[in-house]
Amino acid sequence: MGVSANGAEQRQERFDRGLEVLTRVDGEGGQRVIDALADINPELAHQVVAWGFGEIYSRHELAARERQLVTLGMLTALGGCEPQLEVHINAALNVGLTPTEITEALLHSAVYCGFPKALNATFVAKKVFGERGLLPVAAN
Amino acid sequence: MGVSANGAEQRQERFDRGLEVLTRVDGEGGQRVIDALADINPELAHQVVAWGFGEIYSRHELAARERQLVTLGMLTALGGCEPQLEVHINAALNVGLTPTEITEALLHSAVYCGFPKALNATFVAKKVFGERGLLPVAAN
Amino acid sequence: MGVSANGAEQRQERFDRGLEVLTRVDGEGGQRVIDALADINPELAHQVVAWGFGEIYSRHELAARERQLVTLGMLTALGGCEPQLEVHINAALNVGLTPTEITEALLHSAVYCGFPKALNATFVAKKVFGERGLLPVAAN
Amino acid sequence: MGVSANGAEQRQERFDRGLEVLTRVDGEGGQRVIDALADINPELAHQVVAWGFGEIYSRHELAARERQLVTLGMLTALGGCEPQLEVHINAALNVGLTPTEITEALLHSAVYCGFPKALNATFVAKKVFGERGLLPVAAN
Amino acid sequence: MGVSANGAEQRQERFDRGLEVLTRVDGEGGQRVIDALADINPELAHQVVAWGFGEIYSRHELAARERQLVTLGMLTALGGCEPQLEVHINAALNVGLTPTEITEALLHSAVYCGFPKALNATFVAKKVFGERGLLPVAAN
Amino acid sequence: MGVSANGAEQRQERFDRGLEVLTRVDGEGGQRVIDALADINPELAHQVVAWGFGEIYSRHELAARERQLVTLGMLTALGGCEPQLEVHINAALNVGLTPTEITEALLHSAVYCGFPKALNATFVAKKVFGERGLLPVAAN
Repeated sequence: MGVSANGAEQRQERFDRGLEVLTRVDGEGGQRVIDALADINPELAHQVVAWGFGEIYSRHELAARERQLVTLGMLTALGGCEPQLEVHINAALNVGLTPTEITEALLHSAVYCGFPKALNATFVAKKVFGERGLLPVAAN
Repeated sequence: MGVSANGAEQRQERFDRGLEVLTRVDGEGGQRVIDALADINPELAHQVVAWGFGEIYSRHELAARERQLVTLGMLTALGGCEPQLEVHINAALNVGLTPTEITEALLHSAVYCGFPKALNATFVAKKVFGERGLLPVAAN
Repeated sequence: MGVSANGAEQRQERFDRGLEVLTRVDGEGGQRVIDALADINPELAHQVVAWGFGEIYSRHELAARERQLVTLGMLTALGGCEPQLEVHINAALNVGLTPTEITEALLHSAVYCGFPKALNATFVAKKVFGERGLLPVAAN
Repeated sequence: MGVSANGAEQRQERFDRGLEVLTRVDGEGGQRVIDALADINPELAHQVVAWGFGEIYSRHELAARERQLVTLGMLTALGGCEPQLEVHINAALNVGLTPTEITEALLHSAVYCGFPKALNATFVAKKVFGERGLLPVAAN
Repeated sequence: MGVSANGAEQRQERFDRGLEVLTRVDGEGGQRVIDALADINPELAHQVVAWGFGEIYSRHELAARERQLVTLGMLTALGGCEPQLEVHINAALNVGLTPTEITEALLHSAVYCGFPKALNATFVAKKVFGERGLLPVAAN
Repeated sequence: MGVSANGAEQRQERFDRGLEVLTRVDGEGGQRVIDALADINPELAHQVVAWGFGEIYSRHELAARERQLVTLGMLTALGGCEPQLEVHINAALNVGLTPTEITEALLHSAVYCGFPKALNATFVAKKVFGERGLLPVAAN
């Protein structure tokens, strides 16, 4: 899609702003997703960064830890989003949620999504917490 | 289902504890759901109160406003849960989330659930905010 | 789509066989759906009857009441299928499930689908039972 | 969110570009959604237009009618998106899909999503076609 | 969460009752899930047992095989619940459903959920039946 | 299920017609699914072929590439259908969609389904394109 030199510059600026937020929130997990898209759908990678993070995540109306709580709720409810849950359980820890808060949110999800989705999300948390040396979680 | 006198007492205690939490969080909306179930599925009403609120909501590992953020995320993502969103957008306001925080959470949901579900949830918020005299929400 | 005279005959036979099963299971509710499709998507109506009922429902490997239990589970879990739940809660009654069994199945669904979908399905049951003079359901 | 004068200008440009595409595709239906968001979530309205239409719909890698076919498939499969289906069945007609092609796509959806979602989408099509004087659709 | 000595006793009783039902229905599969939760979310494990099985499964309004039919329908429709389907296809066999009845329920699910979800569930059944020496299933 | 000799013949004819369409569209991927069902649910295999392909895919109201666009939209939106996406991304290439058109459809899906489902589908496309030597896709 042809864009003017000026448009290309704006596009790059938005990407750069998003990348900064993405790196702060998702750490390496976010960058790995972007890299994996390079040869298949680079425009999707651009939009995840420039729009998702540059336009939405960069807003100040919700604290970072609150955005992750909403996000954990959504990814658990959608189902089949285990790869994204892995990125965002890491993100939740990165922005200051504790393991106990995360597992409580997943326990809470059983009320609204049922046990199967709560269990699927919890086993992703188990993998992430294990990799980060955070097991066992204090009995909550 | 036969329960011993002692079991019946415990059952009532759990219900009472749940009802107190339900009333604090959901206000009249929760009670209306319980009442509406009386002639069709009273056991479901009992379990919503005694288990959902008495066992899960009554825990202290997440603040009330954080539970509602997770809940808004889940109900938006599930789809088709407009009646429950109406109860829980009211609940979100009851426990101290501002209209701006709620609409920001729904804007955020577009990234993970797509625009249609974000729009459906937002129009439920519009109905609730309208009823409570909270429109217009300051441009966020 | 051109079909030979012979193909047209086979097509009609399958439809007739399906219509007989549909009428036995869904009663008027099924016929109303078929009629409503006549001016918009008659081929969809044909396939609901000829395939759904003529090919699948007509098989004998599950009892009629068992097919409806599976169906209630699916429609509750899918979400947003209230019109189909209305047809199939009627169907469940038509093939001999009791109101208590139906509400128990919906209570059970809370474990796997969460309360919102269990509630949505239960309020459809309330409408159907009300229309058929089956309220209140004995406290189960 | 503070933006520089230059940023505000870019933001307006993207919105204007999106609005042009939105109007061409969705007609009045799109504008009505934007208007309805004005007092509740104007940023969501901005992003639907500036991002959804300005950034994605404005690309040339898929023909307009092909975007609508993908969109009809998604909205049917998601479930509970009847308001968006109404906008996009209108959009499908606006960009040149025939009523027969639309109903065929919905018949096709039964194979992948099951009959309930195919039926829900078809009854939205019936409403839209009726309003536009396109009923009955030629038996397909 | 602080509970009185009496409350702790009731809590244990409910767990014990649930464990007995869980073991009868799910066999080793259920216990494995409980064990896997011990270091990440023991409260979720407690609630699956004490509430899901102790409060809901222990009720007598539906026969055990009927609960599993509803459950197979729900897990198939939800999608992404292959681990739970594996537990519950084993459970279905444990409570007396035959391989033919189970595969028929999954064939039936194609009508309501579409072929992809019916296929995903069927391939879980193939794994379970293979492990239990139940293949091939008599052509149904 | 007892069928007359004549019925058995019609059944075989429909299967044969479907198999021809299946082979043209899905190539080896479709046949592999059919084979994998032989010992677990041969009737499901029959219906995928005889109904899905023989009755629906064989119709001429939508071009083959348009059916695949609708199908990609549905499978992406449903979630958890990665095995079917693999078959149908191959099918999309088989009927003439280009890698650029397919990745554009998946970029488009982010608007309606959110990024997680768009990403899941894109990584299936990456696997298929890689196997067929179609990477990198030209930056679209």
